[in-house]
Amino acid sequence: MVPVKLTAMDYKGRQRRLRDSLVSARLDTLLVTHLPDIRYLSGFTGSAGTLLLTPTKCVLFTDGRYTEQAREEVQGARVVIARKSSIAAAGEWLSNQSRKRRSLVVGIEGEHLSVAQRGMLARCLGHRFRLREAPPLLDNARMVKDEEEISLLRAAVNLGASLFEHAQGAIRPGVKETEVAAEMEYAARRAGAEGMSFETIIASGPRSALPHGRASQAAIPANGFVVCDFGVILAGYCSDMTRTVFVGHPSDEDRRTYAAVREAQQAAVEAVKPGVGVSEVDKAARKCLNNNGMGRFFTHSTGHGVGLEIHEPPRIAAGQKEVLRPGMVITIEPGVYLTGSGGVRIEDMVVVTENGCEVLTPISKELITF
Amino acid sequence: MVPVKLTAMDYKGRQRRLRDSLVSARLDTLLVTHLPDIRYLSGFTGSAGTLLLTPTKCVLFTDGRYTEQAREEVQGARVVIARKSSIAAAGEWLSNQSRKRRSLVVGIEGEHLSVAQRGMLARCLGHRFRLREAPPLLDNARMVKDEEEISLLRAAVNLGASLFEHAQGAIRPGVKETEVAAEMEYAARRAGAEGMSFETIIASGPRSALPHGRASQAAIPANGFVVCDFGVILAGYCSDMTRTVFVGHPSDEDRRTYAAVREAQQAAVEAVKPGVGVSEVDKAARKCLNNNGMGRFFTHSTGHGVGLEIHEPPRIAAGQKEVLRPGMVITIEPGVYLTGSGGVRIEDMVVVTENGCEVLTPISKELITF
Repeated sequence: MVPVKLTAMDYKGRQRRLRDSLVSARLDTLLVTHLPDIRYLSGFTGSAGTLLLTPTKCVLFTDGRYTEQAREEVQGARVVIARKSSIAAAGEWLSNQSRKRRSLVVGIEGEHLSVAQRGMLARCLGHRFRLREAPPLLDNARMVKDEEEISLLRAAVNLGASLFEHAQGAIRPGVKETEVAAEMEYAARRAGAEGMSFETIIASGPRSALPHGRASQAAIPANGFVVCDFGVILAGYCSDMTRTVFVGHPSDEDRRTYAAVREAQQAAVEAVKPGVGVSEVDKAARKCLNNNGMGRFFTHSTGHGVGLEIHEPPRIAAGQKEVLRPGMVITIEPGVYLTGSGGVRIEDMVVVTENGCEVLTPISKELITF
Repeated sequence: MVPVKLTAMDYKGRQRRLRDSLVSARLDTLLVTHLPDIRYLSGFTGSAGTLLLTPTKCVLFTDGRYTEQAREEVQGARVVIARKSSIAAAGEWLSNQSRKRRSLVVGIEGEHLSVAQRGMLARCLGHRFRLREAPPLLDNARMVKDEEEISLLRAAVNLGASLFEHAQGAIRPGVKETEVAAEMEYAARRAGAEGMSFETIIASGPRSALPHGRASQAAIPANGFVVCDFGVILAGYCSDMTRTVFVGHPSDEDRRTYAAVREAQQAAVEAVKPGVGVSEVDKAARKCLNNNGMGRFFTHSTGHGVGLEIHEPPRIAAGQKEVLRPGMVITIEPGVYLTGSGGVRIEDMVVVTENGCEVLTPISKELITF
């Protein structure tokens, strides 16, 4: 399979840089509860854990199911196996560590800590600690991928792209959408994927007008678009791509719809370069569809970051302030959805380079008909 | 495929009963943000939404990706397509509705609303509203399954169980764990499953001592246990089962380990009946393993509820206060894990009946050797 060296990840460097950013965020400690963030910082892939980062220490709290696994995976952090919830264990550990008189500020991940967890944590910590929503330090760090991550993403994208051939082999009138998905997912697993990065979308005929039309028991009709949106997880990293094919004979209008989406997708890809605001990339796609009279049928944003999670910052959408930087990996996926009739979406993953971007998805965007 | 009539679900009855429980919980309104809860109450299966339940109204807020889907799926609730986050939209709607002078108490799902979402909601609502963590009204409602749910769970369990044959067909020395998982997942999809209910666990040889040993690229060794823990999602409902097989020739000690786990599993199943505390069920399994000198190798709880989610209340564990009631569907899954050597886990799903329980999983627990 792909030669993936997870041990090459620079966990200690990531911890060090995060520690440096604690100072400017005026936090004494950061409590990390979002599992992909914990994986990013320590390599731990278990399904339960809390990581504490102090100016001098990094400690991972998890439970007895993960004793062996944590020992194998975790780098740069001490592992504590807790008998209680990992958040409560982290709270008690912190409470026992601190001998300082002044109150300590503990940063929490506001997007990823529940109201109930916050309450429990506050009770464990007592009055000497103050909880504060940390700025998105980990989002910011993870948004720009390092070399190792880009090579893992590249491997995931290539494996994901190889599934499109299996989709083409399975798509024909009368076949159920789930059967197409089954062939793709089987191939993914056999090729070494840990799983799919989201529920495979195979949306045929009128269902292609559903932007999130997960493969259903519906049979592919004799004439119409089939939107195929799918991705794999490989060594923890996600891929995401969409191609839309046509079963039967596309009308002139179908061809115009496809061409308009393809043009918009290309325009957005061409807009991607360092220093450009993500809203500009969104605007490039939208302007193109507006010019073709189809802007009002493009009902979602143009893309999103991809990495350890299938949806990561930045969102490529109107009103978003983020500016593209080299190393960001994002999707570009405009679509047009004509309710009751059908829809088209085309999606690539791209990595922002020093001068522009590189399209990672190695699959043609010509309209394929069956 | 299985004859699943989702429209038969009693969404309006569920809403009515929840509304009744608002009064005793002293809440004017409940804000539901946990997607399985939203599905339980309205039938909506989209990946983004917020549901508001007031004494007279039920409103689902979602976004433009789900316009069509919400129209098809949602029962008993008005649908609002929002241009902003569904929580913010719900907050503004509520704020515009209320003409009352007294402040209104809005119940939130503390386990499922993030600290950041709570902050945003509070800003949208302004000072006339008070947010309060609601008691686990939906956990309580969902814990006891109705007839339609039990028949869907039964269908999911049967489909899930049929995969064990595919596992047995694939397991042999030298085959990768992921290849076994691939065969099972392929069969699941072809049989109509929406997907797997969790990452398939195929843990062979020394890896069988990892309670959460997701299928890896490791090849199955010539001699040792193989833990197979897997489940499907069918019509939204999850299945979960574990069988442990032996490749090669089990030693007397291996046979003793297997027999001890099987005995413990049986003891726990026999303890399941209405009125019994869940901690008693856990104790039944643990006592049995203690008697066989293996109690210390049983490092997790005995089981959990299953339904729209793979892990639901109640937890079948020491210290838990919940008492079994007819209609609860839970797993019974003790295990023994001998680090460096191997492990055994046996798991069935059972439904609590009026007099005891019915084991749903239709697969023998005799030790199978290859």
